[in-house]
Amino acid sequence: MSYDLLFEPVKIGPVTAPNRFFAAPHATGHGFSLPAGSTALRAMKAEGGWGTVAVQITEVSNNSDMANHPIERIWDDVYLDQHAKQVEAIKAHGSLAAIELAHGGMRARNFATGVPVIGPSDLPILRAELPVQAKAMDKSDIREFRRAHKKAAQNAKDVGYDILYVYAAHDISLLSHFLSRRTNFRSDEYGGSLENRARLLREILEDTLELAEGERAVALRFAVHEPGAKHAMTYDGEGREVVEMLADLPDLWDVNISGWSADSATSRFTEQGYQLEFTSFVKQVTNKPVVGVGRFTSPDTMASVIKSGKLDLIGGARPSIADPFLPNKIKENRVEEIRECVGCNICVSMDAYGVPLRCTQNPTIGEEWRRGWHPEIVGQANKQETSLIVGAGPAGLECALTLAKAGHQVTLADAADEVGGRALLEGGLPGLHGYRRVIDYRLWNLQQRGNVDIYTASPLEAGDLGDFGADNIIFATGASWRCDGVGRSNFDAVDWASGTNVLTPADIIAGKVPDGPVVVYDDDHFYMASVLAEHLHAKGCDVTYVTPLESVASWTAYTLEQRSIIGRFKSLGISMHVNSTFRDYRAGVVTVEDAYACDSEKRFEASALIFVGARTPNKALYEGFAQSQPDSRAFLIGDCLVPGMIQAAIHSGHRVAKELIDDGVVPFKLEKPIAAE
Amino acid sequence: MSYDLLFEPVKIGPVTAPNRFFAAPHATGHGFSLPAGSTALRAMKAEGGWGTVAVQITEVSNNSDMANHPIERIWDDVYLDQHAKQVEAIKAHGSLAAIELAHGGMRARNFATGVPVIGPSDLPILRAELPVQAKAMDKSDIREFRRAHKKAAQNAKDVGYDILYVYAAHDISLLSHFLSRRTNFRSDEYGGSLENRARLLREILEDTLELAEGERAVALRFAVHEPGAKHAMTYDGEGREVVEMLADLPDLWDVNISGWSADSATSRFTEQGYQLEFTSFVKQVTNKPVVGVGRFTSPDTMASVIKSGKLDLIGGARPSIADPFLPNKIKENRVEEIRECVGCNICVSMDAYGVPLRCTQNPTIGEEWRRGWHPEIVGQANKQETSLIVGAGPAGLECALTLAKAGHQVTLADAADEVGGRALLEGGLPGLHGYRRVIDYRLWNLQQRGNVDIYTASPLEAGDLGDFGADNIIFATGASWRCDGVGRSNFDAVDWASGTNVLTPADIIAGKVPDGPVVVYDDDHFYMASVLAEHLHAKGCDVTYVTPLESVASWTAYTLEQRSIIGRFKSLGISMHVNSTFRDYRAGVVTVEDAYACDSEKRFEASALIFVGARTPNKALYEGFAQSQPDSRAFLIGDCLVPGMIQAAIHSGHRVAKELIDDGVVPFKLEKPIAAE
Repeated sequence: MSYDLLFEPVKIGPVTAPNRFFAAPHATGHGFSLPAGSTALRAMKAEGGWGTVAVQITEVSNNSDMANHPIERIWDDVYLDQHAKQVEAIKAHGSLAAIELAHGGMRARNFATGVPVIGPSDLPILRAELPVQAKAMDKSDIREFRRAHKKAAQNAKDVGYDILYVYAAHDISLLSHFLSRRTNFRSDEYGGSLENRARLLREILEDTLELAEGERAVALRFAVHEPGAKHAMTYDGEGREVVEMLADLPDLWDVNISGWSADSATSRFTEQGYQLEFTSFVKQVTNKPVVGVGRFTSPDTMASVIKSGKLDLIGGARPSIADPFLPNKIKENRVEEIRECVGCNICVSMDAYGVPLRCTQNPTIGEEWRRGWHPEIVGQANKQETSLIVGAGPAGLECALTLAKAGHQVTLADAADEVGGRALLEGGLPGLHGYRRVIDYRLWNLQQRGNVDIYTASPLEAGDLGDFGADNIIFATGASWRCDGVGRSNFDAVDWASGTNVLTPADIIAGKVPDGPVVVYDDDHFYMASVLAEHLHAKGCDVTYVTPLESVASWTAYTLEQRSIIGRFKSLGISMHVNSTFRDYRAGVVTVEDAYACDSEKRFEASALIFVGARTPNKALYEGFAQSQPDSRAFLIGDCLVPGMIQAAIHSGHRVAKELIDDGVVPFKLEKPIAAE
Repeated sequence: MSYDLLFEPVKIGPVTAPNRFFAAPHATGHGFSLPAGSTALRAMKAEGGWGTVAVQITEVSNNSDMANHPIERIWDDVYLDQHAKQVEAIKAHGSLAAIELAHGGMRARNFATGVPVIGPSDLPILRAELPVQAKAMDKSDIREFRRAHKKAAQNAKDVGYDILYVYAAHDISLLSHFLSRRTNFRSDEYGGSLENRARLLREILEDTLELAEGERAVALRFAVHEPGAKHAMTYDGEGREVVEMLADLPDLWDVNISGWSADSATSRFTEQGYQLEFTSFVKQVTNKPVVGVGRFTSPDTMASVIKSGKLDLIGGARPSIADPFLPNKIKENRVEEIRECVGCNICVSMDAYGVPLRCTQNPTIGEEWRRGWHPEIVGQANKQETSLIVGAGPAGLECALTLAKAGHQVTLADAADEVGGRALLEGGLPGLHGYRRVIDYRLWNLQQRGNVDIYTASPLEAGDLGDFGADNIIFATGASWRCDGVGRSNFDAVDWASGTNVLTPADIIAGKVPDGPVVVYDDDHFYMASVLAEHLHAKGCDVTYVTPLESVASWTAYTLEQRSIIGRFKSLGISMHVNSTFRDYRAGVVTVEDAYACDSEKRFEASALIFVGARTPNKALYEGFAQSQPDSRAFLIGDCLVPGMIQAAIHSGHRVAKELIDDGVVPFKLEKPIAAE
């Protein structure tokens, strides 16, 4: 299949995208206070061939203050320098620069600015736990909003952005809040009929087009479908009507599904292209170009999407994070070198948590400026050394590849019959197949090189290591699940009653399936316990999920998977018990204490307790070696350094490799805040 | 009683505090990225007479990265300018500048810096929901930590801080994590006995003293007691032993109780001086001066604490936020002018949420630099106008006082028999007496002025207002609780079955007490529902608390009250049901849907449903007036502008007053981030 059509230019109003690769707007977790970091991140996508690079939600007014979330701003002149530098950095590579101008409406909280939150109606803001309401905008508020949006668009035009967005997506938009019957209870010409509810959106579009004066393109980002929402926009209902109503008004339609968790769904719950079912109608309604997303990483799929007329531009947020060079690799016929997005939403979780984003596949994301890392260029090592890496899990693979690229003679050894470590093991569990991509990318690339030897089924002992004679020995020996009751909320070991059947995730991954009812006790709070519950249910077990925290798989709220997990549990009949702290397991009964109930004990029959808690780093080999050879160059990476996410393991493998290559700790640059005059 | 002893100088090692008022270290929510704001905030305390002003937790190392929380840093030269400016600003008023150097240990997450979190043992970090573990520090990690702490202390010394802290409090400290049997499982000389667990603390103290070279004082902040913690430090156990062990080593003991929610307890649960029971022993053990906190606002109490030898310095965090001029007001015999801390922890909640702090009593906090506000100096109005303020609740009182200070002729009218609005009404509920202070401070100050007329029992109608002839009419008419089922998580009105007894908070405050069992349905999520549950229980009702969110009174997690509320509910036998969404109320039965249970309905008998949901702004009077007299100068403030926290109402009253005084919107300055070279 030819990919040439992916490299055709696309006219977007008065500007022309050099190809069909469109790096969609997404938050970087840097906010307005770390502009050098986010600029370098976005410029890297332009360097890698994304013909259009879009900047994330950028607040147009001080009454759209979404702090504590790190967000961009363009409502004050103090922020214009950083935008100008960003535009310049993106355009330096021949790409178009786009900016997603936005007003958060009822998603703002205005804690920092201290002015009223605004919305269509007098209602609480869309963060139920916050003690803030929105003010129903009167006519002067509407005039002021239009003025502010226009001023922000003027600012964006002045600093050189090619595409100015009008934003009505993710339910993080004042315009969405006017559009929706969920939040718009007005009785004037801005409420009631869909035409009325869309009035403000149309006015803002017209304002922006007027200001763009045919020199800039105006894009509309609109969520055409809202799965599961009350009074939802739907692709065959009001969502479609809005597109019909405004069909040829914007220069570009950027369409998706809402909310954020639907738009940015993970590979555990969706396949590549999952949005097309809802978005592909748009091209039938408008003559203007259409961009959409759907975690596209396969050039075949992309070409087919274009060819079949579903989209004009391939939007990519997560795929452009995982591989900023995805377009160039397709262009240069290096498709196997693509670092395919795992679909794990670690990127999303970091931004949602309020820190600069990370990526499982791409350890250099967010480090372009502060550590000077490049996703493709490692640099040549100062010295051509030999490096032995013990353990071919995520950290070992990444470290090996990075060192090999820099010219080290690399030996990678693993005790298992196959490389991959935990990515291999966990990748076999329900919904976690995405982690196999961690192996695929690295193994293929290692295999292309002449300076790498890979040995599987090769357990090593401390004595072997010195004999090997490598300049550097890097330990990537992973971690082991604890089975002593120590987890994230309890550090005191449990003295299990004799005869109890306590199993760890490793036992289940190794194939154990208990007979009879099982309790999965989640004191880990990321994906593992919920995945094991699903797995054991599929194997025929009667599964009860129990956690001491307030919510099911708490951290998955940040990866946007929590609601899907709960939905799946309910559909499978897996019962869930939150706020339930382990107390005892004996005679086939697990007893937990309910933090809220006054009568506080609950009991569950269990032929096995699957305890998902803390992990212990496997560093005995390292310690034995370091003790016997204190002057040797030995390093820990990945889970045996400190057990964590696969993302953290890969980052640590990359970091230590770079420290070896550059012969010292990589400096970590920091942005300096100054008081504006 | 003479307060002279409060103004005696106190020698702290080589430096001397000019008086006994010690503005304790507390977070400001500005972090390292908003230095102008936090500097101005702290300098204001020095201006107001606090003899020592301490800077909050300041990270000493890049492996103490507590982002997403806004925190200070001193581990890189890029931050030294801002510290130097801060020291200069504090010292300009003759105060000592102190800095709380800290390493978060297992409370760091290092998401931004991407290096391993460190701690005494290989254990998860102390945020159970995060997928991060800490690395057990080996000897080289300990050496590196000591080096980093020393470098940070050197930085602090170089920029001129007078007092350098060593920090082992709140369980947010690596040194605490070494000290505690909860987290220290080491088998080397840093683990086991208390002496071993305290070794690192002693080393850091000695390192810092050595570096201070008798030119700077070294303070130790240590939590002597940890109520409710596992393996706790206690004031009659290991907490006391640590003080005995290090008795005269630091130049100053800053002692408190831990964790943060114990240290910063609210007025709902504690009285002024609540920590003395646990901290006053320290002065019997050491010859060095001792500072402690306990929400001290009464000069009589302060003088008695000093006189009775319980403390040498009166620490104040929240009292110094509520009134930066507290010391000067005591000195100048203006005790009635003190703006006493309400003890509501809005300050804490904002910082905990990650935004610049706010204060119910002091609307100028955090606005010193960005809006140029001063807690005492309002400035004279450009024009001597007359202003009518309709409604004497928190917003009306604040607006009236601010305008009166600026020279306006002010008339304040309220329909009720007594001023105070919701502060008066809510202040009568269990635990909310603190809100009376909102009235006390403002009413007394208004009564001292010749340019203020206050009318109670004076309901006004739109027609009256124009006749009054004021230059400005400011509406502060509050908000009303909705009783139609619309709350923070549901915007669709409920069609109540006929004959059901649905009551609002206003009904209960007005004295209604249902017969028989009641359900309090919390779709507000701050204090109100839990307070009403307590109140109705005290009146003899059988109370069930139900909320659709994951946790009881969710926002009170940010005010640090949630655990106390749950504890109180349990002790009172008030049953709690979370994740339970209202479905129906008929025939004396409330039906809710349990989000987690597969068999998802729960039913509760209820003779009344207390519905705590959204509020509607009372703006009919304003709208009627504005419509009939479109050219008049009419303004909305407080809950009738947008229903929110009492803090927000007071801030809005102050803001609109300032806009009238300065004849325009007060500019909001922003700090500009630049990339370091």
